[in-house]
Amino acid sequence: MEPISHNVFNFSAGPAGLPRAVLQKAQAELLDWNDLGTSVMEISHRSKPFIKVADEAEQDLRDLLNIPSNYKVLFCQGGARAQFSAVPLNLLGTKTKATYIDAGYWAESAIEEAEKYCTPVVHKAKIDVDGKVAVQPASEWVIDADSAYVHFCPNETIDGIEINELPQTDLPIVADMSSTILSRQIDVSKYGVIYAGAQKNIGPAGICIAIVRDDLLDLASDVLPTFLNYKVLAEKDSMYNTPPTFAWYLSGLVFKWLKEQGGVAAIEKINRDKAAILYNYIDASDFYHNNIHMNNRSLMNVPFQLSKPELDAKFLELADERGLRALKGHRAVGGMRASVYNAMPVEGVQALVDFMKEFETQYA
Amino acid sequence: MEPISHNVFNFSAGPAGLPRAVLQKAQAELLDWNDLGTSVMEISHRSKPFIKVADEAEQDLRDLLNIPSNYKVLFCQGGARAQFSAVPLNLLGTKTKATYIDAGYWAESAIEEAEKYCTPVVHKAKIDVDGKVAVQPASEWVIDADSAYVHFCPNETIDGIEINELPQTDLPIVADMSSTILSRQIDVSKYGVIYAGAQKNIGPAGICIAIVRDDLLDLASDVLPTFLNYKVLAEKDSMYNTPPTFAWYLSGLVFKWLKEQGGVAAIEKINRDKAAILYNYIDASDFYHNNIHMNNRSLMNVPFQLSKPELDAKFLELADERGLRALKGHRAVGGMRASVYNAMPVEGVQALVDFMKEFETQYA
Repeated sequence: MEPISHNVFNFSAGPAGLPRAVLQKAQAELLDWNDLGTSVMEISHRSKPFIKVADEAEQDLRDLLNIPSNYKVLFCQGGARAQFSAVPLNLLGTKTKATYIDAGYWAESAIEEAEKYCTPVVHKAKIDVDGKVAVQPASEWVIDADSAYVHFCPNETIDGIEINELPQTDLPIVADMSSTILSRQIDVSKYGVIYAGAQKNIGPAGICIAIVRDDLLDLASDVLPTFLNYKVLAEKDSMYNTPPTFAWYLSGLVFKWLKEQGGVAAIEKINRDKAAILYNYIDASDFYHNNIHMNNRSLMNVPFQLSKPELDAKFLELADERGLRALKGHRAVGGMRASVYNAMPVEGVQALVDFMKEFETQYA
Repeated sequence: MEPISHNVFNFSAGPAGLPRAVLQKAQAELLDWNDLGTSVMEISHRSKPFIKVADEAEQDLRDLLNIPSNYKVLFCQGGARAQFSAVPLNLLGTKTKATYIDAGYWAESAIEEAEKYCTPVVHKAKIDVDGKVAVQPASEWVIDADSAYVHFCPNETIDGIEINELPQTDLPIVADMSSTILSRQIDVSKYGVIYAGAQKNIGPAGICIAIVRDDLLDLASDVLPTFLNYKVLAEKDSMYNTPPTFAWYLSGLVFKWLKEQGGVAAIEKINRDKAAILYNYIDASDFYHNNIHMNNRSLMNVPFQLSKPELDAKFLELADERGLRALKGHRAVGGMRASVYNAMPVEGVQALVDFMKEFETQYA
């Protein structure tokens, strides 16, 4: 069968598409990496060639995000859900409370897990503005002063909500950036901990990045499993446990690819262009709708609904035939969702809009 | 540069070599899997094509190990070290003690982690027999009757020790089989929990198998991070958290490859042949030594020492030139170590022995 790869655009919310050039390089050297005659996944994580991979990946990420030297960069296992436990178990210290800003599904999942270890003080920030879903301004978020930290999720992948402000507090700010990391510029120095599952903007599923300010490394609970302990991971260069070496290597290739694109500032511009193409078309159409207030629309995950939900299946079928993959919305909200992470080129978004126009013309 | 892959034999203890045919298939379909036009690592774990991968991997493992229907097969993250925490947190229930049989480094690492959650009752089973390292017969192991379970590690990768008996007890037996799973036949019904990091006999680093008897699913501690909870993983088909999909897919390919080799009985025969070639040569030589009693020699990890340790570096250098990779022993014991997991063909072991002979002739 003829390969159709070059015509395919993958809108999966995660595990998501990776840059084609990265996969091509991985494919070329899958059986003979670095002239060793073996795959990179077949060598010891403690061997010199792999340590070079690991160190370069960390340095490239530091360069991309301009991470200050008083932050540790950890390559963890278990994904963001593991961090839902790891954050309270690493950061509570002698405190018993933490503030959680709630604007959607993933913030709520973090809260549910935190309840095992502390009393989460929850501030519900999702509101209705002119019939649209929005998030309160950060100035209105109520933060409990006795909290060990303030947790929020700047991008709610399922709802398509993005928060462009930080909690206004001197407490450590903890952010689940699984869907936004590397998609736009951030000031790492304003955070206590940033964590992100890789499978959206970094690499394959099975690795998770944690960026931890070094004054927060001495607060771990006695019941924290050691492989989730930030201090141990920092001291052992994320090799306390055998790390997921192939996922680490692929993440490193993605970081190098992103540098070649011009870094985070350059990709942010492209991401804003991509989002504008899609949102502008949806807003101009009477057939497609997005119910998120424009202040809080996600650059990465664009949910939209058809005016005739009975056409959802037809839309997905025809889109798939066109090579426009994985557009079905999350079961919690229905409709469609286009995830347009860094690896999605502008051409993919344009192809989607072209298809949406045709579909609207034929079926509206 | 000319590819040298076909001349290379990789004796890495883990991450270890994978079957060449598996890597070739993964390479061929890395950019266009299942005619989807995307990589298998770029699709949702909840998509039908991936669920088929996941289900087939589980069924193939069930077939290979003849796993009874009252056992759950879980694909976990975090490696065996995560299980060092997960085991006590999942199994203690209201009990406060667990018996640990100690015959080496990995058993001791499990004990150290268990001390966070219970009082491990440790039975030291490593003994000296005729100047060789051996393990007491299981009939002499002291098992505390109030234990929630009895933990042992049937293969100590670093020391090169294998235990061919089971604890004699009605308590649930928990085994860290990271280095032996699928290398020889076992009777799963005799165990409560079997766990194994993938990076030796299953797949790439970053995934860990747990096989759990279903009467042990209701004992979880309140402080167990949910992503390590056996019951939740069982109920969610190991997809509570986004699983490491590419590692799962590769593990499934390894299971299919092993079935093609004739299954575990057939590979056990090959493994015994491989081990015999190596140990017989070492025993016949005055230049190479293995200090493990023959009752407890590992089929998978063969450490050996040179009579002249000052030649270690030369040995490693010349072996590497010959394409015999990763023979350096663990820093805890020094010398050499040949790990000869399922993916190592007999030819690789023969090539190693041929080289050892030549080296002995030239330098002894």
